[in-house]
Amino acid sequence: MILTVTLNTALDLTYGVPALVPHSSHRVTDLSERPGGKGVNVARVLTALGHESVVTGFAGGATGAVLRELLAALPAPVTDALVPVAGDTRRTLAVVDRATGDTTQFNEPGPQVTAAEWTAFLRSYGELLTSADAVALCGSLPPGIHVGAYAELVRLARTAGVPVLLDTSGEPLRRGIAARPDLIKPNADELAQLTGSREPLRATRDARRRGAHAVIASLGPDGMLAVTPDGVWQAAPPAPVKGNPTGAGDSAVAGLLSGLVEGLSWPDRLRRAVALSTATVLAPTAGDFDRAAYEELLPRVAIEEHAPGAA
Amino acid sequence: MILTVTLNTALDLTYGVPALVPHSSHRVTDLSERPGGKGVNVARVLTALGHESVVTGFAGGATGAVLRELLAALPAPVTDALVPVAGDTRRTLAVVDRATGDTTQFNEPGPQVTAAEWTAFLRSYGELLTSADAVALCGSLPPGIHVGAYAELVRLARTAGVPVLLDTSGEPLRRGIAARPDLIKPNADELAQLTGSREPLRATRDARRRGAHAVIASLGPDGMLAVTPDGVWQAAPPAPVKGNPTGAGDSAVAGLLSGLVEGLSWPDRLRRAVALSTATVLAPTAGDFDRAAYEELLPRVAIEEHAPGAA
Repeated sequence: MILTVTLNTALDLTYGVPALVPHSSHRVTDLSERPGGKGVNVARVLTALGHESVVTGFAGGATGAVLRELLAALPAPVTDALVPVAGDTRRTLAVVDRATGDTTQFNEPGPQVTAAEWTAFLRSYGELLTSADAVALCGSLPPGIHVGAYAELVRLARTAGVPVLLDTSGEPLRRGIAARPDLIKPNADELAQLTGSREPLRATRDARRRGAHAVIASLGPDGMLAVTPDGVWQAAPPAPVKGNPTGAGDSAVAGLLSGLVEGLSWPDRLRRAVALSTATVLAPTAGDFDRAAYEELLPRVAIEEHAPGAA
Repeated sequence: MILTVTLNTALDLTYGVPALVPHSSHRVTDLSERPGGKGVNVARVLTALGHESVVTGFAGGATGAVLRELLAALPAPVTDALVPVAGDTRRTLAVVDRATGDTTQFNEPGPQVTAAEWTAFLRSYGELLTSADAVALCGSLPPGIHVGAYAELVRLARTAGVPVLLDTSGEPLRRGIAARPDLIKPNADELAQLTGSREPLRATRDARRRGAHAVIASLGPDGMLAVTPDGVWQAAPPAPVKGNPTGAGDSAVAGLLSGLVEGLSWPDRLRRAVALSTATVLAPTAGDFDRAAYEELLPRVAIEEHAPGAA
C-alpha cells in the first residue's frame, strides 16, 4: 500500500454565492463538503488509479468526525489510519462567486497538537511504514508541531527503507530536504522561497543539492521539470488548458508515487503526473480528475530530455 | 418559563482575517463558534435577565450536535427542547476584516425539514406551550417549512392563551400577522417591505391594522416606536452609540417579552428593550450585552408619549 501523511487534515467547504460583495450579507446558494488536506487528495487519486492507499495524520473534534465519516463514504474508500487529537480539525472554505467563477479562500489554522499526540502519531507511523511501498508527506504543519517534524518523518521512512516524497513549503520543506527525501515536488513559488531563484532549471538543481534525491518542479501550465540522478527531463501537456487548478499538485504527487511503486521510468512517471494534473484542472469538481481526459492526454504529454552534459 | 422558537437554528462562526481581499487566500487568525439563530439569542438574554427560558426549533446532523453541546455549555444554560431533524443544521459565517472591522456575512440555507419532522415539532410545541408564560417566534424558515408556519404557531399559542411575539420578515411575517400575534417587532426594512411605507409612524400603524395587537418598530439608533392598544410611545437611547448591531434586535425582543411576563407598563418595557439593545451594540462580543452599560442606560432612556388624538 501507499501511505499518505496529512498532519493538518481539513474539512473542505465550498460555498456558492450569486456574487461576492465585501461587507454585505450573502445567501449561500449551494454548498459542498469534502474530506481534504493534500495527503487525503493524493490518497483519493491513488485509489482511483487502483492503488491501495492509507491516510494518516490527525483528526479531532466535531469537524474531525465529519471528515472521517466522509472518508468512509467515498465511492472508492481510502483506509483511515488517522490519529485522534483533542483539538478540532480545521475547515477550509472556498467561496465561489457564481457570476465570475472567482474563488476566495479562507483557511483555519488547525488544532493545537500536544507532545503526547505527536508521540502517538510517531508510534502509529512507524507501524504503518512496515507495510508501506512508499509514503507521501503532505501539506502544512498544524500548530504545536515542531518545524523539523517532516525531517523526522523522512528519516524514519529512510530507516525503514520506504521511498518518501515530501510536498510542503517554507521552513518545514527546508528542514525536510536536509533529511534527504527521495523526492520533492515544489511549485515555482516554493522553489523560489527555498532557493531565491525563479529560473526553473537553476532553482531545481539548487533544491536537489540541498539533499533531495530527485526534484520534480511543477511549473503550472508549462508542466514539470525533473532533476533526478538518472537525468533531467521536461514534461508538458500537449496544449494549455483552462479550469480550476485546485488539487492539480496533489494529483501530480499521486502520479509520481504510483509510477515509482510500479517501477516506471522517469519519463513514464512524468507523463502520468502531467496527464493527471492536467485532467484535474479540467474536472468539473475541484480536486477530482477527469478520467477520460487523463487517458486521452497520457500518450500526448511531450517529454524532452536535457543533454547529459547540461544536467 | 419563556419559550423561544427558532425553526432555522444556526452555528454562528466568526473568522477574523488580517484584511479581506476578494479572490485571494486568507489565513484565519482567530475563530469563534457560538449557538445561534434569533430565538437562541433571545433565550440567552432572557436567562441573563433571570428568566427561565426554553429553546425549541430544529437541530440535526454534525452541526446540530455542536450547537446543542455549545447550548449546554453556556455559563447560564438555556433549556434545550430542540426537535431532531435528519438534515444538517446550517452554519452562518461572519468574516471580520481586522484592519477595518467590516463584516462580510455568509448564511447557509438550513436543512430540508420533512412533513413528519414538522408534525413532531408541532406536538412538542403544543406540550411546551402548556407551561409557557410567553412565546417568541423568531427568524427565517428553513427549506421545506410552509410559508404559513408562523401563522399556525401564532394560532396555537393564542388558543393556549400564551402571549406570542413574532419576529420574522417577508411573506412569513405577512401571513403571521394575519393570525393576530400579541406583538411584532419589525425593523425599518421589514416594515417597508410589509407596508410599502418608510414613514415610521404610518408604517407601524399600517402593520398594526394588519392584525398585530401591538407593533414595536425598531428604528436602529433612533430607538423604538410602539403602537399599542394603550397608546403610542417613542423610546430612544440617551445618545447614539457606536458598535456592532448584531443581536441588538434579539436583545430588544428579550426586553419586551420579559417586561410583558413581569407585567411592566409599556414605557418600562420599552425602556428595557432600548437599554438592552443599546448595551448589545456596545458589548465587545457580538450578540452579548454589556450589563454595566445596560444598568447605566436603563433610567436614561427617553420616552415620549404621542397625544392620544394622534394615535
